[in-house]
Amino acid sequence: MNLGIVGATGAVGVEIIKLIQKRNIKYDSLSLFASKRSVGKKFIINSIEYVVHELKEDVFNSLDYAIFSIGSSLSKKYIEIANLYGCVVIDNSSAFRMDPDVPLIIPEINANIIKKCDKIIANPNCSTIILNIVIAPIHKINPIKKIVVSTYQAASGAGLRAMEELKSQAESYCNNEEYDTRIFGRQYIWNAFSHNSSITENWYNEEEMKMVNETKKIMKDDNLKISATCVRIPVLRAHCESVSLTLENNIDIEKIYEVLKEAVGVKILDDRKNNIFPEPLIVSGKNDVYVGRIRKSLINKRTLELFISGDQLLKGAALNAIQIYEYLTYL
Amino acid sequence: MNLGIVGATGAVGVEIIKLIQKRNIKYDSLSLFASKRSVGKKFIINSIEYVVHELKEDVFNSLDYAIFSIGSSLSKKYIEIANLYGCVVIDNSSAFRMDPDVPLIIPEINANIIKKCDKIIANPNCSTIILNIVIAPIHKINPIKKIVVSTYQAASGAGLRAMEELKSQAESYCNNEEYDTRIFGRQYIWNAFSHNSSITENWYNEEEMKMVNETKKIMKDDNLKISATCVRIPVLRAHCESVSLTLENNIDIEKIYEVLKEAVGVKILDDRKNNIFPEPLIVSGKNDVYVGRIRKSLINKRTLELFISGDQLLKGAALNAIQIYEYLTYL
Repeated sequence: MNLGIVGATGAVGVEIIKLIQKRNIKYDSLSLFASKRSVGKKFIINSIEYVVHELKEDVFNSLDYAIFSIGSSLSKKYIEIANLYGCVVIDNSSAFRMDPDVPLIIPEINANIIKKCDKIIANPNCSTIILNIVIAPIHKINPIKKIVVSTYQAASGAGLRAMEELKSQAESYCNNEEYDTRIFGRQYIWNAFSHNSSITENWYNEEEMKMVNETKKIMKDDNLKISATCVRIPVLRAHCESVSLTLENNIDIEKIYEVLKEAVGVKILDDRKNNIFPEPLIVSGKNDVYVGRIRKSLINKRTLELFISGDQLLKGAALNAIQIYEYLTYL
Repeated sequence: MNLGIVGATGAVGVEIIKLIQKRNIKYDSLSLFASKRSVGKKFIINSIEYVVHELKEDVFNSLDYAIFSIGSSLSKKYIEIANLYGCVVIDNSSAFRMDPDVPLIIPEINANIIKKCDKIIANPNCSTIILNIVIAPIHKINPIKKIVVSTYQAASGAGLRAMEELKSQAESYCNNEEYDTRIFGRQYIWNAFSHNSSITENWYNEEEMKMVNETKKIMKDDNLKISATCVRIPVLRAHCESVSLTLENNIDIEKIYEVLKEAVGVKILDDRKNNIFPEPLIVSGKNDVYVGRIRKSLINKRTLELFISGDQLLKGAALNAIQIYEYLTYL
């Protein structure tokens, strides 16, 4: 169990390193990799100093497992090499998610489909994970037929530099200075904008299509009707989602509460009296995905509405990947 | 045409005063009113100085028209008095919106239902206006059967002090000081939260029910299926809405574009190549409500998705009220 963290200095990589310590993750050796500009950075993990090395092809020779949190084109290149060396990869990028031979895993939902021979395990998109972990238990008691989701996404999904850009804009606002807009090309503080991924042929953006296609794959239902609108809001590290779910049968709201209360990785926060529901600052740093505003839709008896918030860097990325590693090494 | 502005020093009142000058609004006399603590404040309008007076019962004796932008309980009290004095009121509050005898007006849509004998004209909720001005022209060519909307609402809807609180939190963030949370009871910067209005019996909040009920009234369709989720995001003065509309017939996307292009008060911003769509900072200060991300839903052929943004203080409140005044005085 020689473990490598690829992209160790990125927003997700740093969270993975924290989780390795926090969850007392088992390994025989641990190695950290990143691109050239981060080589030499140091991390103290369980009182041992680890130096970040450059990601090169031959590093996989000595690794059994690697968790990748780098861009999808680099992932594609290096995962093939890692696999050739016999290294099993958990990949946070979108590179292999829709590959029919690659399992797309949220451990609470479908870890059971991982096979011992799998060499790549894909971590779903962050918004997809946050949605699916809440709706999967509902689907079991009353099959989901239709999903309409609108997201409220944080800067963290675009990486550390995006978070820094947003923070820097608070400083610029206070000092009446020009905004640094290198990442998003616009003022982000006091603003909201359609997700910065490219618009695809069907006029949905790539982020929306990830949510759509990955949810269908995770739910094993190509005929699922799902549509998404992905929007960035000036929040640092947790996403929210407003979800309208149409189910096969009439909603039994008591049963919905019951099943969500029992769901692993999900926490209900639905304090209607005090108006306290899931919000980014409540869920930041939390492992669970929070759900509230649980209510029967005004539209029809089979529709349920929810408001969800989850830490994009934790369950949306690093935590889910670490849970997959835990599952693999317990197999 | 003796005109009074009631609530002249509030977020909406100040915008009404700006519009009076900008649009060269006609009146014989203009008087400004507010609560005790704002008495004595001065405004220069068309080079003439106006002093803010205290709102008292007898002020309506000398007024023909008044535009109210104060809380709904005060509105209820003073509008009755104003009407007794023969003063016609345009009311920004929710006090009379659902009164079957009071027209609920977005001039571009239904100014024609105003009767000469009407003594109260209600201005719809800001989120309702921003939604309806975009969907009304679509409804004309392909009747709307179902609306699912999620909002991204600015601080401005809660007034000037809410906007100040949000701005002050940027300062506090930069200086690492404690946040002033008097208005919303929570950190607002870098956060998002379910709209701060009370949760009603059906578990929707009051803001959501305003959107639902007022839209039905404006569209004259009690059977319209509509559901809303209202959320505040850290933006200063423009709201956004993610809208899924199910129509009676299959979507002809060209026709939708055509009708939105011709719609008064609506502007299409749908630059898929450069990823530029409606966003709060683009629409702040603009009269038009912007619409983009216009696309056929992935769910079915009769569903259309849109992303809308409009200045909450302008078309969402002050501008709509001023347009009603213009209409009334041209009658």
